[in-house]
Amino acid sequence: MTTDEAAALGAGFGVDLDGGTPALRQMAAAVRRLTRATVRTGVDDATLREITAELDRASERLEVDMRDGPFRGDAERVKERGLPFHYNPVLGQANPYAPPVEVWVVDGEVHGTTVINEAYEGPPGYVHGGVLSLILDQTLGLANLAADVPGMTLGLSIRYLHPTPLNTHLEIRSAHEAVEGKNIRSVGSIAADGVTTVTAEGIFRAVPRAKGRRYFNNHFDR
Amino acid sequence: MTTDEAAALGAGFGVDLDGGTPALRQMAAAVRRLTRATVRTGVDDATLREITAELDRASERLEVDMRDGPFRGDAERVKERGLPFHYNPVLGQANPYAPPVEVWVVDGEVHGTTVINEAYEGPPGYVHGGVLSLILDQTLGLANLAADVPGMTLGLSIRYLHPTPLNTHLEIRSAHEAVEGKNIRSVGSIAADGVTTVTAEGIFRAVPRAKGRRYFNNHFDR
Repeated sequence: MTTDEAAALGAGFGVDLDGGTPALRQMAAAVRRLTRATVRTGVDDATLREITAELDRASERLEVDMRDGPFRGDAERVKERGLPFHYNPVLGQANPYAPPVEVWVVDGEVHGTTVINEAYEGPPGYVHGGVLSLILDQTLGLANLAADVPGMTLGLSIRYLHPTPLNTHLEIRSAHEAVEGKNIRSVGSIAADGVTTVTAEGIFRAVPRAKGRRYFNNHFDR
Repeated sequence: MTTDEAAALGAGFGVDLDGGTPALRQMAAAVRRLTRATVRTGVDDATLREITAELDRASERLEVDMRDGPFRGDAERVKERGLPFHYNPVLGQANPYAPPVEVWVVDGEVHGTTVINEAYEGPPGYVHGGVLSLILDQTLGLANLAADVPGMTLGLSIRYLHPTPLNTHLEIRSAHEAVEGKNIRSVGSIAADGVTTVTAEGIFRAVPRAKGRRYFNNHFDR
């Protein structure tokens, strides 16, 4: 990825986890619950068909008002606080696809936690490795924002040390390491029950910094 | 990951994309549609709350009969054909979380295609990089199965060359490269509009082969 590409992508960069109404977050939680139920239910096909018809009617109601482009909130807010992350596929409480991962900052390092359910299963009883790489791709990028050096991912290296169990409290860590010329390097890990199961290193192309922009908002610290 | 761990995880290894009833696949498609609608809808909060209540009632109906452990089909079928993949979070047509990615084999190489929607958005208008790493983690593993050398992922390296657009027909390729001692190496890529946007290399710990096991079933070729 070139610096120009990174700059274009990072134009509205920043983290605003706030946003999205409680109603929208509850909607996402309901769809997340349906996702898990779909991969675990044993109800008969007739019941599945009835429910499917109901869900399609629900989608039709939501689809009467669909945005054409990416939803990124109003321009003023983006300028002030960065892109809203509530639809983010890893962190977004308003995105049913996100587990979601909850994140905060301690001493400039990103800490996170999540519980991964059966919808993300790889080997029986364990989280799909690719889902862990997805989570780390996101939190490594956050670590750069926490250090105020935004970048777009160029390279991601993941090492799977042990299987990571489903339905277990996972501890996620990501830290910015260094700026090396045009690039940024960050490292991260995921642990379950005190055992590190996955480590990651990311290389990012630096995005030119917007003057006066804060890349993290307060809602992110705790 | 040790050879013992890999062997334990890979005990039922194999690819059976068949399985799951049409009713279950339609159910998953309906939940997938709801996921996209959730991240794009602009309907008001009152409507969201009404729909959320309906979805929770639907979940309750599905949850009256939920399996305790991983659903892997009956033991005989697993022994004969390998694990059913219809709940797989990348490939599974019965998993609302999966885009899904459709795969087939040409000359021993895994080919795949998918279209990624707004639920998986990273930078505005583009697929979240971690979602691409998730897809490649899966298809690199399939490439080993297609070559009849099953393994569990030890390491995954991803290079992001260019942004990958949403709602675009993506071409996925993965090929087994070599067995190196206890490990297996595979490579893969994703392209959009004829341009390679992501490349990947995976290192896998070999799983001891089950005698007489076919790791791919015919439904996979086309």
